[in-house]
Amino acid sequence: MSWNTFGRVLRFTTWGESHGPALGAVVDGCPPGLMLSESDIQPYLDARRPGQSKFTTQRQEPDAVRILSGVFEGRTTGTPISLMIENVDQRSKDYSEVAKAYRPGHADYAYDAKYGFRDYRGGGRSSARETAARVAVGAVARMAIPEVSIVAYVSEIGGDAIDRSNIDLSEIDRNPFFCPDPAAADRWENLVDSARKAGSSLGAVVECIATGVPAGWGAPIYAKLDADLAAAMMGINAVKGVEIGDGFEVAKLTGETNADPMRPGEDGPQFTANHAGGIAGGISTGQPVVMRVAFKPTSSILTPVETIDRDGNAAEIRTKGRHDPCVGIRGVPVVAAMMALVLADHKLLHRAQCG
Amino acid sequence: MSWNTFGRVLRFTTWGESHGPALGAVVDGCPPGLMLSESDIQPYLDARRPGQSKFTTQRQEPDAVRILSGVFEGRTTGTPISLMIENVDQRSKDYSEVAKAYRPGHADYAYDAKYGFRDYRGGGRSSARETAARVAVGAVARMAIPEVSIVAYVSEIGGDAIDRSNIDLSEIDRNPFFCPDPAAADRWENLVDSARKAGSSLGAVVECIATGVPAGWGAPIYAKLDADLAAAMMGINAVKGVEIGDGFEVAKLTGETNADPMRPGEDGPQFTANHAGGIAGGISTGQPVVMRVAFKPTSSILTPVETIDRDGNAAEIRTKGRHDPCVGIRGVPVVAAMMALVLADHKLLHRAQCG
Amino acid sequence: MSWNTFGRVLRFTTWGESHGPALGAVVDGCPPGLMLSESDIQPYLDARRPGQSKFTTQRQEPDAVRILSGVFEGRTTGTPISLMIENVDQRSKDYSEVAKAYRPGHADYAYDAKYGFRDYRGGGRSSARETAARVAVGAVARMAIPEVSIVAYVSEIGGDAIDRSNIDLSEIDRNPFFCPDPAAADRWENLVDSARKAGSSLGAVVECIATGVPAGWGAPIYAKLDADLAAAMMGINAVKGVEIGDGFEVAKLTGETNADPMRPGEDGPQFTANHAGGIAGGISTGQPVVMRVAFKPTSSILTPVETIDRDGNAAEIRTKGRHDPCVGIRGVPVVAAMMALVLADHKLLHRAQCG
Amino acid sequence: MSWNTFGRVLRFTTWGESHGPALGAVVDGCPPGLMLSESDIQPYLDARRPGQSKFTTQRQEPDAVRILSGVFEGRTTGTPISLMIENVDQRSKDYSEVAKAYRPGHADYAYDAKYGFRDYRGGGRSSARETAARVAVGAVARMAIPEVSIVAYVSEIGGDAIDRSNIDLSEIDRNPFFCPDPAAADRWENLVDSARKAGSSLGAVVECIATGVPAGWGAPIYAKLDADLAAAMMGINAVKGVEIGDGFEVAKLTGETNADPMRPGEDGPQFTANHAGGIAGGISTGQPVVMRVAFKPTSSILTPVETIDRDGNAAEIRTKGRHDPCVGIRGVPVVAAMMALVLADHKLLHRAQCG
Repeated sequence: MSWNTFGRVLRFTTWGESHGPALGAVVDGCPPGLMLSESDIQPYLDARRPGQSKFTTQRQEPDAVRILSGVFEGRTTGTPISLMIENVDQRSKDYSEVAKAYRPGHADYAYDAKYGFRDYRGGGRSSARETAARVAVGAVARMAIPEVSIVAYVSEIGGDAIDRSNIDLSEIDRNPFFCPDPAAADRWENLVDSARKAGSSLGAVVECIATGVPAGWGAPIYAKLDADLAAAMMGINAVKGVEIGDGFEVAKLTGETNADPMRPGEDGPQFTANHAGGIAGGISTGQPVVMRVAFKPTSSILTPVETIDRDGNAAEIRTKGRHDPCVGIRGVPVVAAMMALVLADHKLLHRAQCG
Repeated sequence: MSWNTFGRVLRFTTWGESHGPALGAVVDGCPPGLMLSESDIQPYLDARRPGQSKFTTQRQEPDAVRILSGVFEGRTTGTPISLMIENVDQRSKDYSEVAKAYRPGHADYAYDAKYGFRDYRGGGRSSARETAARVAVGAVARMAIPEVSIVAYVSEIGGDAIDRSNIDLSEIDRNPFFCPDPAAADRWENLVDSARKAGSSLGAVVECIATGVPAGWGAPIYAKLDADLAAAMMGINAVKGVEIGDGFEVAKLTGETNADPMRPGEDGPQFTANHAGGIAGGISTGQPVVMRVAFKPTSSILTPVETIDRDGNAAEIRTKGRHDPCVGIRGVPVVAAMMALVLADHKLLHRAQCG
Repeated sequence: MSWNTFGRVLRFTTWGESHGPALGAVVDGCPPGLMLSESDIQPYLDARRPGQSKFTTQRQEPDAVRILSGVFEGRTTGTPISLMIENVDQRSKDYSEVAKAYRPGHADYAYDAKYGFRDYRGGGRSSARETAARVAVGAVARMAIPEVSIVAYVSEIGGDAIDRSNIDLSEIDRNPFFCPDPAAADRWENLVDSARKAGSSLGAVVECIATGVPAGWGAPIYAKLDADLAAAMMGINAVKGVEIGDGFEVAKLTGETNADPMRPGEDGPQFTANHAGGIAGGISTGQPVVMRVAFKPTSSILTPVETIDRDGNAAEIRTKGRHDPCVGIRGVPVVAAMMALVLADHKLLHRAQCG
Repeated sequence: MSWNTFGRVLRFTTWGESHGPALGAVVDGCPPGLMLSESDIQPYLDARRPGQSKFTTQRQEPDAVRILSGVFEGRTTGTPISLMIENVDQRSKDYSEVAKAYRPGHADYAYDAKYGFRDYRGGGRSSARETAARVAVGAVARMAIPEVSIVAYVSEIGGDAIDRSNIDLSEIDRNPFFCPDPAAADRWENLVDSARKAGSSLGAVVECIATGVPAGWGAPIYAKLDADLAAAMMGINAVKGVEIGDGFEVAKLTGETNADPMRPGEDGPQFTANHAGGIAGGISTGQPVVMRVAFKPTSSILTPVETIDRDGNAAEIRTKGRHDPCVGIRGVPVVAAMMALVLADHKLLHRAQCG
């Protein structure tokens, strides 16, 4: 795995900046013979697409994906699949302020410190727009793991969590928050809209559950399934925490309360609990793989924040322009895509070693 | 990075089972000319060594490390450094029960599902003994980053957290819990001892802080410093959660409360907060790198748990033998070692691209 | 390094088929701050471009490269550089024959055996058209090694070799064969034209010399500079042999005749011979890096050859369409590009470990 | 693949110096359940072992291998296999001369230029002793490809080639040269012995043929089977050239004379020629994989050679001590081992992608 490549045997490389002509990805190592067309990918991009409600950035991007290679007569050939998404709405604006001063919480200062300069237009490579490429690739990965179902949703915004006794997965696509609890979705309308109007932003938690993962995927010691998932998630823009199964709650448990007992079942072992989130010793157990991810509030806010400029002088910055009041919402399809990628990669990796 | 290899340009590969003749590691890509001898490594192994108090497993292992290659006349040569630690206390015991039935929470079932069979003696490769190799390698990595200081400690055991207004880092080595709050250390004596006597176990949280990391380390997009840290930590036995900076707390914050404002300083920018934990856009900012890791309670407990045997029949298992009542305690040197490895790797990686 | 990725820290991934909409490459790990525009790349593509003389395929492709990311205000940013070349002359033709029967010497049968089916249009991914992407990437790599000069030329076609006492490097660009010996170039006109008219094809040898490589590049044991060069060259379509320095001639030498004695020089050591081709122990010595590469004759010929069809029945095939009578000629820019890539990669790799 | 690691999914890392306490290797990604014990490995080490005839170095090393991990109850577990070989005959000698001056042709100068200093005892890491680790690993790899048979032999020493009409593979183990032509073996006795007595050395060519490789192994474009073989071979000490199939001879052929026609056969396609050496488009065709490798004469000779010392002053050096008069002879088991490793790696790699 290199800088802009993710995966071990099913690998993808993304490229592109927020305000360049296009962005895209190359998927390598995809099994041959899978049915694949743009229409298999587009729905996932549409779910992530900005400008669909007032709760996400108003940038208008069709995010139409094009397959440039690796597919012949509707099937993957086993050669690299090149995916490209053109940037359409690169609204002409004045970047002089952001070019000169650093937005606290953004990658501006860190990029300058590393590379000496940066493409400051819309965040350049550090823009969340790059995640469109991951979502496209995730759709390809899903074709390689038809046995797995992945669901992701927002479980908390700004400290207001869903009621776990009220989860209805069919609700997820019925509100602009990917929220499985309709009561919470109602509350979030006001919560997020208030933040938006105030020029502020909110953090969020996204949960992701994969069912159908057979026991045996994962490669100890340093390519554990959970370690790869943690890397995949922590690498998403704005993510600051990752949990598998009970996550930080395990620190409060005892060996007895944390146990996942096993019973004989008709189709193999049955577990009577899933504190482990479907992974033991870095290998899937056959239970659902369960993960939670924390997104920070967008650092682009209308409130002025103290900062410095490129010359090191004191300055103040207020991020104008189009931004997400809660970037965690649009993180949902990205989390699901990265889950698909890690699982597909480990399916192939397992096949390599264990036949 | 392969199955048992970690790192991008400073790479190490570990090997060995709990009850085999030895375990070890090969470190590759280490800069030449660093002073290195066994005595630079041994203190870190001693800190992790079992059997030093009644709060850790009673297995007696000197964990004496031997350097077999890569060092000449006291300095690293740039060729692979082979480190070996012999297993001494492979106490002869009856493994027939654990060979036949799966310990819930352990990797037993997952290893069998993956590989078809397993070395069941003491957990084999999935034993926490493997982390001795990581600690040894971490000591080598520290020689490559003399500008960085790393401190790690336990901040919570079984739900009982330290008082953050009472942290004294000099206390860490004065109690058997790596605890910086002496009052908490006192309470944990009873807490952990009770768990031990009851044959139970407790979860814990470990914090790790690296100071002296310059701005610019980290390689976006898929080799972000925080993504690599997350993988490093989630790959440690028993870890179920990883946070950078404020971690899951960010989900409750707003853009304003989460901001890390910058001010001009004498030696470069000064940040007046560190919610980000020293990393923005996957690149270090020059602030301390701050991380928290959740360890589950050891699954080896004396209370019988429902399980199945290798033939799929219902069984009950009760893990006899020597075990850690709170495995998070001995996780402290491992967390610090993995922090050192990720930072040293990224120092070299940054040098490769940015000169 | 994955399937379609080459390089260790300066990595590129190519994609695209002969008759798809486009082909391209993503370059990752390029140092920031290098001047780069399409006009730095285009001349190298023009040198490789088909249809420029009757001695190469008549396919008409402008091979115009577009930079889609990674460059801002004329300089590389350190983020991935996406390069795209559209396929223009995908002449509509009848592929029914090649779809059904295997061309001996081609990758047709091997691709089918591996992937179950293949994109048969123009060779699909196995077409030498893919090397356009390598040439484009090579131009980027050259920007990272301004200290190095690379020259490549054809030294032999169809068994007719250049006269080494008659080499004039300034001749290389004055004939359609990249030939440094004008007398040989004259002879080759007839030789290659006869083969072309007969519907036959000829093998060739390409030599490549890099000067200015400092001592110290290369990473023993398994990333030796010569090993990476060998992989780079053997991976070029139609290549069947690679030599460093004296190559197979060394098998006829003794220790005395093969020695490269050293003498003190004003700017470091002077070697009085270069049998080793500038590499010892896998590390550059500061002498010119010298390499020779053997290209087989194009297997696409007008003479009918015995083969089988996809159903395993006996068949006969005669490859119509546009082809290179001597594919080694257009291999020259590809060999030089791969030399540049390996050297640039090892420059960065050396910097990572040795500062 | 890192500095001292080779392979893509079946990977090994070697370590150790000529005069350190031991050398070894860690094999990662080996399929579980393979029968493996020291006695499966030792015969291959014995074939490479020095001191067995007057035609190889007189260093006395038992080269007894120990398996330290990854095998349980006689079978591989899927976890890393650690192999160790102790150095026994590290004859105490005066290294002051070689410590001060560079042996031309050796890696001495290049190592110093790269790393700033070097372990000069017996060549340190650049010693051919390291290849013992490869031979041990190759024996493990062979267990993973029971369908493949590999034979290797010397086909030429000092310009004196075998008679191809007189090849009898059963002769290979009956002479100290791994020579399949008994008449050539007779001649070589005098040839090599004369070189030995004169304190000189001779180059050689080694051929290697693998039969039983099914069609479909190899991963285009940059992990082609032949590219990986070329890297594997060029990375062996003293190798300067690699050919697949007809190698450099193809440069003299035409499309017609180079064709490998196909005919229907009972067990799949039959090829009526094998100019390609069993690989087309980087993928195996089902024919025997054929390779030739050129070894230079050992640079350690008794004749004084002009050189410089570490301070850059003119000097003269004459390599005393035990050396191989023809290092290509002991290269035979190494070539075969690397062939096994590349094939086993590609078997697993193919399985990953194509199931």
